[in-house]
Amino acid sequence: MRKTLVSMVAVLIWAPSVLGGDVPLSGGTEACLECHRTIHPGIVADWERSRMSKVTPAQALKKAELERRISVETAPGDLANVVVGCAECHTLSPDTHEDSFDHEDFRVHTVVTPRDCAACHALEAEQYTGNLMSHAYANLNNNPVYHNLMIAANGVQTFEDMKTVIKEPDPETSADSCNYCHGTQVAVRGFRTKETDFGEMELPILEGWPNQGVGRINPDTSKGSCAACHTRHQFAIETARKPYTCAECHKGPDVPAYKVYTVSKHGNIFSSLGDVWEFSSVPWKVGKDFSAPTCASCHVSLVVSDEGEVVARRTHQMNDRLSWRIFGLIYAHPHPKSPDTTIIKNKAGLPLPTEFTGEPVEGYLIDTVEQGRRRAAMQGVCLSCHSEGWVAGQFHRFEKTIQSANEMTLAATTVLLSAWERGAARGLAQGDGIFNEAIEKKWVEQWLFFANSTRYASAMAGADYGAFANGRWYMAKNIQEMVDWLEFKLKDKK
Amino acid sequence: MRKTLVSMVAVLIWAPSVLGGDVPLSGGTEACLECHRTIHPGIVADWERSRMSKVTPAQALKKAELERRISVETAPGDLANVVVGCAECHTLSPDTHEDSFDHEDFRVHTVVTPRDCAACHALEAEQYTGNLMSHAYANLNNNPVYHNLMIAANGVQTFEDMKTVIKEPDPETSADSCNYCHGTQVAVRGFRTKETDFGEMELPILEGWPNQGVGRINPDTSKGSCAACHTRHQFAIETARKPYTCAECHKGPDVPAYKVYTVSKHGNIFSSLGDVWEFSSVPWKVGKDFSAPTCASCHVSLVVSDEGEVVARRTHQMNDRLSWRIFGLIYAHPHPKSPDTTIIKNKAGLPLPTEFTGEPVEGYLIDTVEQGRRRAAMQGVCLSCHSEGWVAGQFHRFEKTIQSANEMTLAATTVLLSAWERGAARGLAQGDGIFNEAIEKKWVEQWLFFANSTRYASAMAGADYGAFANGRWYMAKNIQEMVDWLEFKLKDKK
Amino acid sequence: MRKTLVSMVAVLIWAPSVLGGDVPLSGGTEACLECHRTIHPGIVADWERSRMSKVTPAQALKKAELERRISVETAPGDLANVVVGCAECHTLSPDTHEDSFDHEDFRVHTVVTPRDCAACHALEAEQYTGNLMSHAYANLNNNPVYHNLMIAANGVQTFEDMKTVIKEPDPETSADSCNYCHGTQVAVRGFRTKETDFGEMELPILEGWPNQGVGRINPDTSKGSCAACHTRHQFAIETARKPYTCAECHKGPDVPAYKVYTVSKHGNIFSSLGDVWEFSSVPWKVGKDFSAPTCASCHVSLVVSDEGEVVARRTHQMNDRLSWRIFGLIYAHPHPKSPDTTIIKNKAGLPLPTEFTGEPVEGYLIDTVEQGRRRAAMQGVCLSCHSEGWVAGQFHRFEKTIQSANEMTLAATTVLLSAWERGAARGLAQGDGIFNEAIEKKWVEQWLFFANSTRYASAMAGADYGAFANGRWYMAKNIQEMVDWLEFKLKDKK
Repeated sequence: MRKTLVSMVAVLIWAPSVLGGDVPLSGGTEACLECHRTIHPGIVADWERSRMSKVTPAQALKKAELERRISVETAPGDLANVVVGCAECHTLSPDTHEDSFDHEDFRVHTVVTPRDCAACHALEAEQYTGNLMSHAYANLNNNPVYHNLMIAANGVQTFEDMKTVIKEPDPETSADSCNYCHGTQVAVRGFRTKETDFGEMELPILEGWPNQGVGRINPDTSKGSCAACHTRHQFAIETARKPYTCAECHKGPDVPAYKVYTVSKHGNIFSSLGDVWEFSSVPWKVGKDFSAPTCASCHVSLVVSDEGEVVARRTHQMNDRLSWRIFGLIYAHPHPKSPDTTIIKNKAGLPLPTEFTGEPVEGYLIDTVEQGRRRAAMQGVCLSCHSEGWVAGQFHRFEKTIQSANEMTLAATTVLLSAWERGAARGLAQGDGIFNEAIEKKWVEQWLFFANSTRYASAMAGADYGAFANGRWYMAKNIQEMVDWLEFKLKDKK
Repeated sequence: MRKTLVSMVAVLIWAPSVLGGDVPLSGGTEACLECHRTIHPGIVADWERSRMSKVTPAQALKKAELERRISVETAPGDLANVVVGCAECHTLSPDTHEDSFDHEDFRVHTVVTPRDCAACHALEAEQYTGNLMSHAYANLNNNPVYHNLMIAANGVQTFEDMKTVIKEPDPETSADSCNYCHGTQVAVRGFRTKETDFGEMELPILEGWPNQGVGRINPDTSKGSCAACHTRHQFAIETARKPYTCAECHKGPDVPAYKVYTVSKHGNIFSSLGDVWEFSSVPWKVGKDFSAPTCASCHVSLVVSDEGEVVARRTHQMNDRLSWRIFGLIYAHPHPKSPDTTIIKNKAGLPLPTEFTGEPVEGYLIDTVEQGRRRAAMQGVCLSCHSEGWVAGQFHRFEKTIQSANEMTLAATTVLLSAWERGAARGLAQGDGIFNEAIEKKWVEQWLFFANSTRYASAMAGADYGAFANGRWYMAKNIQEMVDWLEFKLKDKK
Repeated sequence: MRKTLVSMVAVLIWAPSVLGGDVPLSGGTEACLECHRTIHPGIVADWERSRMSKVTPAQALKKAELERRISVETAPGDLANVVVGCAECHTLSPDTHEDSFDHEDFRVHTVVTPRDCAACHALEAEQYTGNLMSHAYANLNNNPVYHNLMIAANGVQTFEDMKTVIKEPDPETSADSCNYCHGTQVAVRGFRTKETDFGEMELPILEGWPNQGVGRINPDTSKGSCAACHTRHQFAIETARKPYTCAECHKGPDVPAYKVYTVSKHGNIFSSLGDVWEFSSVPWKVGKDFSAPTCASCHVSLVVSDEGEVVARRTHQMNDRLSWRIFGLIYAHPHPKSPDTTIIKNKAGLPLPTEFTGEPVEGYLIDTVEQGRRRAAMQGVCLSCHSEGWVAGQFHRFEKTIQSANEMTLAATTVLLSAWERGAARGLAQGDGIFNEAIEKKWVEQWLFFANSTRYASAMAGADYGAFANGRWYMAKNIQEMVDWLEFKLKDKK
């Protein structure tokens, strides 16, 4: 009896709906499913649980504006009256996709891109182009300073005669490391012929594949991968709204957002009580659907009050509610104006948003007015549950922390500059990289790990990551160790 | 059909009950809700899901003793026959709260304190004053040795002429770091006037706010914040019983209790099967309500057998079941008698519970009889599921580990003493701090990170944190690195 | 109303079934339960929720082959027609268990072993003997090289005259550290007499107890503990299939499989959506029961498609689907042929599967044909959801990473060899251990932490652990620090 009831409940919650005559499938999708249901049962079952497999764009458009998950004004031509299946995405605009290939009676492309998704989600795709993430590939790989960091981190080293030599990493290594999150450049390297149960097939060979990085360079020249957050093929909004998705790229020592969240009050409430929250309703009602924010609540989602008042508008330009850029760079600074940061030049001629000693580079960063606008947008979310005094106190501390963490980075930079000056290490002036020697790597950790962690801990109120867990304790210790290293290095120079 | 049923279930589990005429709200609370339901929809919805919004103290007292969540003998005057709403807590005993201010027709205070909660939960508030946590502010900030550690960890450093100088951290930094968990001193700094939709308002400006640290010094002079664990405003007992709450302050390298739990058998069972456990029943039935302990089961909760026999009495003096104090101090030692540890003086005149070489300080620590009593209280919980032989083996190993971890701390201390003696570093005898130099910081990590982690791993059977994850491997390596450092430092002194 | 319904659902899901006349209990088990239900309520309630308490072996055998959880052909004699209770396991074959003792009218043993479980699960027990894990005790403790590592990691050190001395760790320390996961040697040390409410009892005193390590040496000479993964006494298949079980031993820096999983797309899907998956069905239907793999899906479970086609056969020889051994050893290499790795001898005469410079040792490792077979078995699971191109790309990168991580280990080894040669450290040739000095410990971390982490990150696509979270960044930095150390050490040797 118990077993039966439990199973029944489980089935009700979980089982994919049976696709019957009542769901308008396109002929293309029907053809795909015929074979792929057997070949790739996992994908198909996943898609069958998705909203896309059940609702046509035309139906989706009938919802009230705030309830809509689709942002075009009219349902797109052929797609309007069928559910969104395999063919709708994988055969859309075949001529624009370098990876399109003839497959049975269709021209199919493997890599579905934001430009494909824009057929229905135009506004989100557009906003995303303003997001730093969409430029994550070039901002890393095409910035000479950062490209250098990639080599120093990923290149294979050899040791001989008390010296190390470093090789430029191969593309597979970069794809397996930094570019896993930043995105690879996906391109067609050639084609291969395959014998299958269904006859001989010609299939593309892709380089930089697989990848779902946020700044992926796609074969149709678009940037990004919606699947980075809207995980295929269920595309559940629950996934995008739960912090585990962000954790894929935001958990490491360089950007411990997820870790900080888990020790914050917000994260605790989510973990303790979130199993009964409503993660799929649009719009998302603060207090009613959820009682503590996840990453999405503060940074992305359309949040409304129970009375239907808009607390925050949906944005896919995530830096939209952020006045400071607190990670990844040497010093925290006002957000760059353009998502393409390779255009920035500081006084030293380097593509960095601050000078080596921390001063923000003029002209490329948002001004205090825009910072205020973004801060207010974020605080709008906070104020749903917190008093003005609470929020003011929290942000006051956060800005103090930005300042003191920058000062601690400056102290480490001063030690490094001294090391270069005294010949204990070799920097740019000596024609060498700035990330390859031990002392330089300690300097990198000062800002990339410890100052970043401290700032995140402050921003999201997960104090341990600003104290002993890669926070202030490590900033303080690292400076002392850099000084000792310098002393040891200079001992026989005296 | 599926959708409808799923939604129905979700609604049944999650939706706040509609407050109607059947719930006796005080006039004060009704007045609060009128505006704040719109201004702070998140808080109000949260509170509406709480038990406090549905049960009056008088009703709560009708429960059988073991089922009671309220510990006063009689329902407190005005509060007895209304549910516990905004006004009941935020306007209670206004004269005792320095932060009380006139707000509409009420005298409201922002910071609800353990003394407020004691109106109904007197026994818990009283027990908590015996808990080390309630003194967490002074035990850290007013102990000169530990205050020094705070400076060394949090102070901003500058580097010049091969020397570093450290500034005393500002209060915001301390509040953002150590005092986030230890608690801040909350005080009224002044008042501000605000134009609102409801007219001009005078609102207090609080320093040290926001904060929910366990040893917070409140504007009514009480210590602590019940909200540290009983998260506002749902105050769900599930939250306090789930380990995520403890993780807010007990996850970092200095006290990795939560991390150890996650790799223990207990933590595995909780994570794998806990989603169907009963986390809200009082008393809490071992085996029936839960099949593996969380932090609360062993350290706090009233646990009974299915037959109703008391396995462990509820305590909010959490050190009540702990014979050893295994973290935070240089050496593990029997628990202090008084929760105020600033009163301790060792032979060297320092406020530390052991000598620098590990011997416990006489007179201030519990004796072996009391240790035995506490050990037995803890083992009572273990024995619900484990045989005597199992438990004896576990505790035997644990006490061995306390001993060997102390020995490994002693080895590191011996290296440090040698460094001070040989002039490689400057300690107390040289008029300097003991936490500011690199070698001193490595010494701190020996006990504060690695020995602590090893002891937790042993106590809670999550071995990795006693092996490679900040455990014995790091204790062993750290000593070798300290010795090498000393050798390098002394090279030109020969 | 809401409360009632919620409670009802909770009860339906969670409450143990009431044992009545319809469940055939053996007389032995009835006798056990009579007292132990009171003495150990936690265990009994746990077992009452188990499948074993409800289904007899004879009933279990009536299932279709793929649905069976029992692998003997015929139900074993006395056990066939009673459910599997206390007595069935704890009194089986008493003469073979050194720890059997007279208890009431029974001859009981404390330590239930894989040989006991084999009465019904013969195939799994047999497969497990081919699993490296079953030899985890001897492969660590009886390999002189690895035994040395245990001493260096766990031994208590003392410092005098600028030198450290290390003591061999006591058995309790080893049991609390490495052997917690690897398994202890459980043996009867004697007997003790105890006064109880039921009269005087003679009870065994076990050494190496408690322990549930995967290679535990049992009092009946068998190896392993099924309870390592099939947690007592509910023995829920959900537990074994969820990643938290594996995390007990596979989360630390030496083998961060669980951590990598949490930042992989698979782990994200599990965390976001897994709460409604079906974790208890046999066979396990990919797509239908779960939409992303857990550890078990890829490494252990019987996985089928919705149409019933076998995707992967169940195996308890977990290395069965693994072509490379990527952790624990100095270099990644083809899997050893025998689970007993103490038999391996490299050219230097050491029991290691590779030379010190990385070349695999001939004769002891699987060949490329067997590697191909195992790779294909694993890829069979991948292909349920991914295209051939995707899978090929993933494995191509993985094998590149194995190669480059080995090269980075070689670089570190070259520095160490140079240190030994130049007299900066003392290795085997100098009659010293290879794990005790600081430079040697840094070398260990190169492969045991950083290269292992990088390989796991690649294998399971959780990139951060191959980048900044103990990955390539640390491999690169560690080499630079080793070189600096060597330089400092040699300064006064010039």
